[in-house]
Amino acid sequence: MTNFCSIKDVEDPAGWIKEAIELKEKIEKDGPFARSGKSICLLFFNPSLRTRLSMQKAAYNLGIESFVFNLNSEGWQLEFGDGVVMNGNTSEHIIEAAGVMSSYFDAIAVRAFATLTHKQDDYQEKILSQFVKYCSVPVINMESATSHPLQSFADMITIEQFKKVAKPKVVLSWAPHPKALPQAVANSFLHWSNRMDYELVLTHPKGYELDPAIVGNARVEYDQNKAFSGADFIYAKNWSAFNDEVYGQVVSKDESWTITPEKMALTNQAKFMHCLPIRRNVIAMDAVLDGPDSIVITQAGHRITSAQMVLKQLLNIK
Amino acid sequence: MTNFCSIKDVEDPAGWIKEAIELKEKIEKDGPFARSGKSICLLFFNPSLRTRLSMQKAAYNLGIESFVFNLNSEGWQLEFGDGVVMNGNTSEHIIEAAGVMSSYFDAIAVRAFATLTHKQDDYQEKILSQFVKYCSVPVINMESATSHPLQSFADMITIEQFKKVAKPKVVLSWAPHPKALPQAVANSFLHWSNRMDYELVLTHPKGYELDPAIVGNARVEYDQNKAFSGADFIYAKNWSAFNDEVYGQVVSKDESWTITPEKMALTNQAKFMHCLPIRRNVIAMDAVLDGPDSIVITQAGHRITSAQMVLKQLLNIK
Amino acid sequence: MTNFCSIKDVEDPAGWIKEAIELKEKIEKDGPFARSGKSICLLFFNPSLRTRLSMQKAAYNLGIESFVFNLNSEGWQLEFGDGVVMNGNTSEHIIEAAGVMSSYFDAIAVRAFATLTHKQDDYQEKILSQFVKYCSVPVINMESATSHPLQSFADMITIEQFKKVAKPKVVLSWAPHPKALPQAVANSFLHWSNRMDYELVLTHPKGYELDPAIVGNARVEYDQNKAFSGADFIYAKNWSAFNDEVYGQVVSKDESWTITPEKMALTNQAKFMHCLPIRRNVIAMDAVLDGPDSIVITQAGHRITSAQMVLKQLLNIK
Repeated sequence: MTNFCSIKDVEDPAGWIKEAIELKEKIEKDGPFARSGKSICLLFFNPSLRTRLSMQKAAYNLGIESFVFNLNSEGWQLEFGDGVVMNGNTSEHIIEAAGVMSSYFDAIAVRAFATLTHKQDDYQEKILSQFVKYCSVPVINMESATSHPLQSFADMITIEQFKKVAKPKVVLSWAPHPKALPQAVANSFLHWSNRMDYELVLTHPKGYELDPAIVGNARVEYDQNKAFSGADFIYAKNWSAFNDEVYGQVVSKDESWTITPEKMALTNQAKFMHCLPIRRNVIAMDAVLDGPDSIVITQAGHRITSAQMVLKQLLNIK
Repeated sequence: MTNFCSIKDVEDPAGWIKEAIELKEKIEKDGPFARSGKSICLLFFNPSLRTRLSMQKAAYNLGIESFVFNLNSEGWQLEFGDGVVMNGNTSEHIIEAAGVMSSYFDAIAVRAFATLTHKQDDYQEKILSQFVKYCSVPVINMESATSHPLQSFADMITIEQFKKVAKPKVVLSWAPHPKALPQAVANSFLHWSNRMDYELVLTHPKGYELDPAIVGNARVEYDQNKAFSGADFIYAKNWSAFNDEVYGQVVSKDESWTITPEKMALTNQAKFMHCLPIRRNVIAMDAVLDGPDSIVITQAGHRITSAQMVLKQLLNIK
Repeated sequence: MTNFCSIKDVEDPAGWIKEAIELKEKIEKDGPFARSGKSICLLFFNPSLRTRLSMQKAAYNLGIESFVFNLNSEGWQLEFGDGVVMNGNTSEHIIEAAGVMSSYFDAIAVRAFATLTHKQDDYQEKILSQFVKYCSVPVINMESATSHPLQSFADMITIEQFKKVAKPKVVLSWAPHPKALPQAVANSFLHWSNRMDYELVLTHPKGYELDPAIVGNARVEYDQNKAFSGADFIYAKNWSAFNDEVYGQVVSKDESWTITPEKMALTNQAKFMHCLPIRRNVIAMDAVLDGPDSIVITQAGHRITSAQMVLKQLLNIK
């Protein structure tokens, strides 16, 4: 594996889940690794709580030195276009930034959200792909325009921990949100879930269809109640529209899609999941989040579990 | 001790001062502790120089890994209200933020200033108390709406170092300032001083009365000159009004309260203290700050001394 | 050596280059040093990529703990004037800030760019000189108003690595840029080059003359093509005007000064250098930067080489 940009970089997801849990248990038992002499730059174009802190903690646990760099506020505005005459607002080209950082660090992790205005730029991963192209060290995706594999890897680890049947029914449900959000988390959840042995159901209002190539074998069900029936896991998430004409827009805020205790009662006592941050009483009611079947904190804790595994593999930590 | 939010969390302040000085001397002699495997998140809602850097240095000295998180610029805007429908500007609820951070770190330190507009929120410690409520690991107050115990602990260590008599006369004096400042430092200084064996005097213009419950046994003297007479320590500080009708307001900028060499001459060659940052020639004249009796740099240095003691206790560092 | 503020702080630049390369090779072979117990504060008033990250990495490589402090966004606005009545926007005086940080850390590194509006302030190094005056620990210049010695030290190391003749012809060429930039990099390059055994040529349009005291023995050539003829190294850089009447202004954006493959063809297959960030197709064409003679990434890599040497000397790392 040379990068960790999507599940395509992972040959054996099930094996990784097993190894990641073993690594977590080893660190809990024996404490952090000794300093490895290796280092990573964590490059942020966007806000973050879990990703930032879990990556730093995972690096620490493995004896890797992490250096946080908030590029927008601490560095120079980057240019990603090829052949551009840089006489405008951008001060540094990705070619030099990537080249220099590659000579300083053993890996580069990047967080760069979707524009939600330029579908082609987003789905061609304009920013992440340029880092991959110009970095000579491994690149880690800390949420790109269209995917968030560290999140989804943590999600799979969480489902593995809580599942009570060999092939659980896993439901990804859209839920309302006041602002337009990227499709990255939903995309990656579908990417990864398609590789697992799940009965996978995707439910959302009409108009929120996701990329069919990503939806894969998931069954699409427009009736949220039907989707919830007998589910073992409910994964709530908002996303904005994917369709060309309304790309990145909020086409509905239908409050009837909020996750309530009544809807959870339709399930097979399903565990409730969300990537966080979550808007309470908009995405899901307090009673769901504060109830005994919410596993969102454990899920967020597995962001360290997944990050540790990725860092260990990419930086070849022994 | 489960948290360090105010002096109420400290059973034996005098014993702590002694231990803190011993710990400081041990580290000066033997160097920093080996890495403990423990970690802390330093969460800032507000600017800081001493608190930020002294906490980081204290953690380093004890082999604790510290992770700085500037929540406003690096993270998500937090919601502190219970039961709120989060369809506005806040993206993440303290319940999840505190839960997640508690699962990542061995302690959480928080800096969140007073609003100075909502007295009830401030004096009920709306933000800090929510962290205490929802964190499952120790919480450290790095200056809250109404108190700054790490500062006051450092202040007491400083007085202990410089006092020449068993029961020194310690004077907390209001001084003018162009902007409205919280009462936190003054409050905590009074809190802690009340537990020490001081002749404690509080002096300020009428209208700057502090919470009587906090003033405690301090004698209030409205004549600054009388207050200074025979003092062993002058602690200068500005604060805004506490009284309901003018809460958080600047009700006087009376320049006659600036600390001058002439006023210092009324004392028993008192040491001059201030928590810093200090506005020169407004709070105190250059000649006071640059004179031989100013101990503000030593006092600021003891921010490491006090932070080390708190971290060692709360994280159970051996 | 008590500070590293300019080449004047370095007795034997050639010896330092040799030692710096040896130190680099030792670290590449043996890995980072063990933790020294020493620490440094990296204080930024301005953006940075290479300086920030190379200093952090160099400190890590030497077992020095580095603490980054973005003063404008994380701390208090500093006052640098003596005797000022601080009733305006500045909250803390350099006297206290420097005093406190000196008591916390073994060295202070500062980045504070030129105003480009107040020539006297800039060329008297108003900010850096106040740090030097009030810090009681070594001060390191991470680019001041008029000089950038860590960059120039790296530049000399790079030239040493690539030179094919004992006395190479080294050309510092102005190139166009849309915004006004400081003279710091050009100044320091001239400072250091004057101490090396180079045939040193400075070329720029009329109106971009630099301080004659700094130009020293460099030959000034207003015809860029003549300057490039037979050159072994081309160092491109933009700077704004130094002359009093137009200080800090862009007096020409003459595009004929952009470094092109055609101009590089006039040289003795010169290596192309730039401190970065570089505006592509403005300072130099893509074909130059992407060609086989561009050494800008290696040059940026030597920012770690130079920083390591400076830190090792100033903090007396064994």
